[in-house]
Amino acid sequence: MIKIEAIIRHFKLEDVKNALTQQGVAGMTITEVRGFGRQKGHTETYRGTEYAVDFVPKVKLEVAVGEEKLQSVVDTIIRTAQTGQIGDGKIFVSDLRDTIRIRTGETGNDAL
Amino acid sequence: MIKIEAIIRHFKLEDVKNALTQQGVAGMTITEVRGFGRQKGHTETYRGTEYAVDFVPKVKLEVAVGEEKLQSVVDTIIRTAQTGQIGDGKIFVSDLRDTIRIRTGETGNDAL
Amino acid sequence: MIKIEAIIRHFKLEDVKNALTQQGVAGMTITEVRGFGRQKGHTETYRGTEYAVDFVPKVKLEVAVGEEKLQSVVDTIIRTAQTGQIGDGKIFVSDLRDTIRIRTGETGNDAL
Ligand SMILES: Nc1ncnc2c1ncn2[C@@H]1O[C@H](COP(=O)(O)OP(=O)(O)OP(=O)(O)O)[C@@H](O)[C@H]1O
Ligand SMILES: Nc1ncnc2c1ncn2[C@@H]1O[C@H](COP(=O)(O)OP(=O)(O)OP(=O)(O)O)[C@@H](O)[C@H]1O
Ligand SMILES: Nc1ncnc2c1ncn2[C@@H]1O[C@H](COP(=O)(O)OP(=O)(O)OP(=O)(O)O)[C@@H](O)[C@H]1O
Ligand SMILES: [Mg+2]
Ligand SMILES: [Mg+2]
Ligand SMILES: [Mg+2]
Repeated sequence: MIKIEAIIRHFKLEDVKNALTQQGVAGMTITEVRGFGRQKGHTETYRGTEYAVDFVPKVKLEVAVGEEKLQSVVDTIIRTAQTGQIGDGKIFVSDLRDTIRIRTGETGNDAL
Repeated sequence: MIKIEAIIRHFKLEDVKNALTQQGVAGMTITEVRGFGRQKGHTETYRGTEYAVDFVPKVKLEVAVGEEKLQSVVDTIIRTAQTGQIGDGKIFVSDLRDTIRIRTGETGNDAL
Repeated sequence: MIKIEAIIRHFKLEDVKNALTQQGVAGMTITEVRGFGRQKGHTETYRGTEYAVDFVPKVKLEVAVGEEKLQSVVDTIIRTAQTGQIGDGKIFVSDLRDTIRIRTGETGNDAL
């Protein structure tokens, strides 16, 4: 089981969510975050406003999936979140030891 | 050392926090998140309002504990966060390589 | 590749960010969180207000870096976030399996 975290642009969230849902991803969690990548110090534009400061608002999307979906989920996020401009975001992949569904107590892949 | 992340309902947070504290959990972090599970597309109710959209507000609870507490913490979260209705939430378990207390520089289990 | 998560005080964020940037950290993500450590039940002060409740506002800082930077990043966070008072915060270290830059599709260390 793995966790895929993607930091993306707000206006891409709807597209990413729909594409992931269509390919069978059964759940996700989003958090409002702020961040910067390699162009820190440089300005980036967010909803028409220039940010002189280096923290730019982004959305963090977290998806827990079975190992076999890793590549397709990453590919879908790249394809749908990409604009080609700096600041498109990052994807972080890490291992999950277990998942539990609170309502039923199910664990492992059954809980995804 | 492990990290236990639980996405739960807001109105359950107080009960979960108290139960974990009583069993000796020495710290936790919470974040406001939004998400959906397997019933995406279906509506879920949050504080009396129906959400047509599929992202429902939840609380993410993060607890770092020693390996020996894994099962009891998971059991406590299931027991206190469960209502039996869809949307009760998920628990994700992952490995932590280390923990450091910033005030003292302590590491490992001493820092938990 | 590793992920370093630090829960710190808001007024320390600017110093921590500047110190990390100066030592070559190329990106970071922050989230508004609330939490408590070992003094739960006791009151802690946040911006002049006493919190009777035990959840105190903090900032979560997440930094993905190559293995070789682990110790220097941890040392920098300790040095810049420390006040010596209880509540200075915690650092959690975990493994990252991969990182991907969405704009270019680069993976691994090239994506950091
Ligand atoms: N090393 C990192 N650690 C943690 N978060 C990061 C890191 N790098 C980037 N991020 C997060 O990802 C967001 C988007 O980063 P960004 O797309 O600018 O990355 P980049 O490496 O600068 O790529 P690009 O050259 O395409 O801009 C940042 O706002 C930040 O929240
Ligand atoms: N695969 C997943 N990845 C990331 N977050 C998830 C995932 N599944 C669920 N979540 C998070 O957990 C929250 C609660 O999910 P939920 O309890 O509805 O799960 P479920 O599998 O649909 O179980 P149930 O059938 O009991 O509703 C979601 O709002 C979302 O934030
Ligand atoms: N075991 C834990 N799991 C998850 N988050 C934690 C844990 N312990 C602390 N935190 C987070 O770190 C923040 C700061 O914790 P704090 O610095 O008070 O730790 P502490 O162990 O009590 O150390 P000190 O004795 O210096 O106060 C908390 O508000 C909480 O968000
Ligand atoms: Mg960038
Ligand atoms: Mg559900
Ligand atoms: Mg404390």
